[in-house]
Amino acid sequence: MPGMPPSTSPTRFAYLGPEGTFAEAALSSAVATSEGTRTPRPSVPATLAAVRSGDVDAGLVPMENSVEGSVPTTMDGLADGDPLIITREVFLPVAFTLAVRPGTTLADVRSLASHPHALAQTGRWLEANLPGVAPLPASSTAGAAAAVAAGEFDAAVCAAIAAQRYGLDALADDIADHAGAVTRFVLVTQPGPLPEPTGNDKTSLVAVVTDRTGALLDVLREFAVRGISLTRIESRPLRDRLWVYSFFLDCEGHIADRRVGEALAALHRVCEDVRFLGSYPRDDGRENRAVEPDSADDAFAEAAEWLTRVRAGRV
Amino acid sequence: MPGMPPSTSPTRFAYLGPEGTFAEAALSSAVATSEGTRTPRPSVPATLAAVRSGDVDAGLVPMENSVEGSVPTTMDGLADGDPLIITREVFLPVAFTLAVRPGTTLADVRSLASHPHALAQTGRWLEANLPGVAPLPASSTAGAAAAVAAGEFDAAVCAAIAAQRYGLDALADDIADHAGAVTRFVLVTQPGPLPEPTGNDKTSLVAVVTDRTGALLDVLREFAVRGISLTRIESRPLRDRLWVYSFFLDCEGHIADRRVGEALAALHRVCEDVRFLGSYPRDDGRENRAVEPDSADDAFAEAAEWLTRVRAGRV
Amino acid sequence: MPGMPPSTSPTRFAYLGPEGTFAEAALSSAVATSEGTRTPRPSVPATLAAVRSGDVDAGLVPMENSVEGSVPTTMDGLADGDPLIITREVFLPVAFTLAVRPGTTLADVRSLASHPHALAQTGRWLEANLPGVAPLPASSTAGAAAAVAAGEFDAAVCAAIAAQRYGLDALADDIADHAGAVTRFVLVTQPGPLPEPTGNDKTSLVAVVTDRTGALLDVLREFAVRGISLTRIESRPLRDRLWVYSFFLDCEGHIADRRVGEALAALHRVCEDVRFLGSYPRDDGRENRAVEPDSADDAFAEAAEWLTRVRAGRV
Amino acid sequence: MPGMPPSTSPTRFAYLGPEGTFAEAALSSAVATSEGTRTPRPSVPATLAAVRSGDVDAGLVPMENSVEGSVPTTMDGLADGDPLIITREVFLPVAFTLAVRPGTTLADVRSLASHPHALAQTGRWLEANLPGVAPLPASSTAGAAAAVAAGEFDAAVCAAIAAQRYGLDALADDIADHAGAVTRFVLVTQPGPLPEPTGNDKTSLVAVVTDRTGALLDVLREFAVRGISLTRIESRPLRDRLWVYSFFLDCEGHIADRRVGEALAALHRVCEDVRFLGSYPRDDGRENRAVEPDSADDAFAEAAEWLTRVRAGRV
Repeated sequence: MPGMPPSTSPTRFAYLGPEGTFAEAALSSAVATSEGTRTPRPSVPATLAAVRSGDVDAGLVPMENSVEGSVPTTMDGLADGDPLIITREVFLPVAFTLAVRPGTTLADVRSLASHPHALAQTGRWLEANLPGVAPLPASSTAGAAAAVAAGEFDAAVCAAIAAQRYGLDALADDIADHAGAVTRFVLVTQPGPLPEPTGNDKTSLVAVVTDRTGALLDVLREFAVRGISLTRIESRPLRDRLWVYSFFLDCEGHIADRRVGEALAALHRVCEDVRFLGSYPRDDGRENRAVEPDSADDAFAEAAEWLTRVRAGRV
Repeated sequence: MPGMPPSTSPTRFAYLGPEGTFAEAALSSAVATSEGTRTPRPSVPATLAAVRSGDVDAGLVPMENSVEGSVPTTMDGLADGDPLIITREVFLPVAFTLAVRPGTTLADVRSLASHPHALAQTGRWLEANLPGVAPLPASSTAGAAAAVAAGEFDAAVCAAIAAQRYGLDALADDIADHAGAVTRFVLVTQPGPLPEPTGNDKTSLVAVVTDRTGALLDVLREFAVRGISLTRIESRPLRDRLWVYSFFLDCEGHIADRRVGEALAALHRVCEDVRFLGSYPRDDGRENRAVEPDSADDAFAEAAEWLTRVRAGRV
Repeated sequence: MPGMPPSTSPTRFAYLGPEGTFAEAALSSAVATSEGTRTPRPSVPATLAAVRSGDVDAGLVPMENSVEGSVPTTMDGLADGDPLIITREVFLPVAFTLAVRPGTTLADVRSLASHPHALAQTGRWLEANLPGVAPLPASSTAGAAAAVAAGEFDAAVCAAIAAQRYGLDALADDIADHAGAVTRFVLVTQPGPLPEPTGNDKTSLVAVVTDRTGALLDVLREFAVRGISLTRIESRPLRDRLWVYSFFLDCEGHIADRRVGEALAALHRVCEDVRFLGSYPRDDGRENRAVEPDSADDAFAEAAEWLTRVRAGRV
Repeated sequence: MPGMPPSTSPTRFAYLGPEGTFAEAALSSAVATSEGTRTPRPSVPATLAAVRSGDVDAGLVPMENSVEGSVPTTMDGLADGDPLIITREVFLPVAFTLAVRPGTTLADVRSLASHPHALAQTGRWLEANLPGVAPLPASSTAGAAAAVAAGEFDAAVCAAIAAQRYGLDALADDIADHAGAVTRFVLVTQPGPLPEPTGNDKTSLVAVVTDRTGALLDVLREFAVRGISLTRIESRPLRDRLWVYSFFLDCEGHIADRRVGEALAALHRVCEDVRFLGSYPRDDGRENRAVEPDSADDAFAEAAEWLTRVRAGRV
């Protein structure tokens, strides 16, 4: 697996729990399909801490959601503390299931629970199909499923995997009000050998810049002059340092690519701080923009050779 | 009040409810301190809908939180649908209170509830001071307070205003694990006369650009060439249009300022779409960067006169 | 004629003389083909002075030559002193003729004279065809022709018009070593109504900037953000002001075009000084780059209307 | 001497002749003060050809003049043909002398000759001091001095060195109408070891770019992002390739400097063609701008090390 140190022992994974979350679904479906141990952690910080302490080899946490936006605890958890590296990204469609104990029909449902975000995203379906039932909040969608299994509520809005895990039946699938919602998870490890470039990679980083007119422009310029597309940008003020901002940036390409490496080295020079968060295969079903010939590795290599020649006086 | 049409009748406000939320605290402390009706709405979309329908004159909703990040439903709610205008921003420190029924002591607390976000932000305090108590989720901090008043739980993590409103006592104040958290609320109205420039204003907008290398750079350049500082930037992919991104931007200055007006007009030309979200007094306790002489209104006015003269052949 | 105030009296022209220069050829062929008085002046400064004093209505002087480069006395003469306006540009192929008194054959030629520049540009031809003849310098190609007519030399390298004017025969035409040389002349007048936009215009200006890293970049950016192509740029240090540079710029478009007007107004704000040198029909046989839709006048007009609406609260 | 291959034999120089030109003055005063052979060549191309053929080791030619501007034959001569390298620049004040045969007084002067440029630059002095004398053109200032020595004219406007060389007396010195004129000469050699960096160097190059909106901006951006100041820029259309322009650029710094090397390598990637013309000590009496810490060699070296570490997974 890319980014994992070669090992004969089974790999140990942590994920944002409890069991039955979308994080577990993403881990099972895309990363550790058949082997490895998987242990839930109660929060993003706890998941990252398990990786940092070496209790696990890798952790899967949500990075952003197409409906809810970025996950600040993940962003902050990667930006601060000991360095971690993203070695995979996993995009998982957010498909909500209405889970009940076997034998329960829609007409039987008198109580319903889920995480508030899930309730918000299925509000119209619930109002239309369970008009008399007041939804109750739960700490997580999986927790709601467990509570249904325990008989506390009649139904839960949760992931299909939660229904399976807690022995529930799915009364309805895909009950989100807006189809197409997707969550982006990232698999993080302690620093180590980077995933090999695949030709369709992304690179994530945090750039900290002093707040002045045009500071961000200067950062973006380092990408633009080298023909690198950004796929995501988000500013976050640093609470503890007045007038200093951090920018979370995702760009196309791998740090092993010369254009990306040179751009990051430039940021390292001109920014207050740059934290590399990883280069990993793109997984959103899109292809990176075609690299312009003058930004390709060949062009960089040829230019470096030319420079060496010229500096030696062989113009 | 800036941005409100002059009126003799009391102004009608909606806010993200229920009663006792931080939104109500922000509304009461900063916007409608003594007059006007205030009605809670169950969600951000419902609050915005009340403004759009004319049921209320203005609505107060959270825009971003220094711990939790942006509030996607507010961003999406302003970017889509009929236009609304931000006429105020209000920054409110997020101070959590442990609220109980009068007479309850810390030792008496056997059950505790709050919104998961609030529980997450007070986790360490709760573990240290209520080690044996498993926190339970609630739909909102105010809802938890109401449930305590109703005897469902012994304690709630909520805003001070919720304790007051539901007749609870504050066993402890400022119990957040990280001091200094702050939420930025915005007051939105239907389009109408803009707040007058104060000399320390911010302008918000959404720019939609086709995804190509350097597209964002081109957007930022329009601000940079006119000496305008950005205070916030966040990209969001448009789910329904492949390869098209929207950027939420806050910049210093008022659209009535010539540099800001010209920059926005330029964006209107070069972007797929630009939605103006309002110009309003800055309220984060900071002063805008000093405007460079060559970006000041005087300089723009003088340049415009010069251009008129030159075009008329009087060089 | 564009740029000339309407008048019933014949127009009075000055040109860089003496009679028979390429400047006279350009004037006769392109500007004042049939009417108007034409008087030679001994130098570029003298020609410009005649315009400034009102002795003539317009003056034709060389601006640049594809072989010899820019003509500094013209550049400096336009940049300094009372403002003048370029109302026309004329590109004239530099075709050298070997002129002799009627009856003279190539074999008869024992002495030859011309301006050093003309001798330099016909050196190989002269060496090949008049191998034994040492070329002698003259103050101008036309002066050399006059001297041949007066019997001082046997042959002159000059313009065809000089041969005509001084009653000489052309022993050979097009004797330049490199074909295709061309001189760009400009017709200057006192400030007054500008030539009407034709859709294929150029605009000339001098921008004076304080010398700092990126100063020129900032100037060029004002053109780039508005989709304006430059056709010529040349830096000249200001001798009397340390660290201050002037840039002579030609761009596509007319100052009446909104994108050009706004760019020049921006330069007026951010530069030490900007001198407008004129907007006039392009005459080099090329078409301006197609204007991008988002830089066209329509787009500017639409954006200005949008801005007016938004500022009035009608978003 | 910087840029000269070490040699025991005397170095052989060519210069733009004839003897007694300002080029010889520059060569004698600054480059080859005591040793080496110096031979005049009749033109810039002939001087460059002597270097290319190996007839001489180095050639001194004028590059630009503060009054007359650039010297196109030098620019074209360096841009085309086999590569040559500038190893020195020499700035020489242009001081004109009125040279006569010994014994001649101002009142005796009945005829006067010089190169037209020199006559133009001393026109007012001549008119004031020799009102009745019509100046005659000569091929060069030195040639005029030789002609005075030969008795052809009474006086010449020339360099002091020409008076000396031809046994003439200086009736008046510094007779230029505008004080402070200066000519910049460059010493060129065949490619070989570059002059060592001195900390106050300049680098010259020719960049050929396809003519499109923003093409020059892209070129300048490569300097700006690396904190490099330009000291000169001049565009020249390529006659033989439609829509292709060449830019002659001088920047601060030496190609051995990492920021300059990386910028030139970037140009090599993005331009149609880049020709390196040399890195050499600055000689105009000015100091280069102080290099910003984030553009210094240390910063580049540190960033390169960081990149190596990160690529190896040691973040």
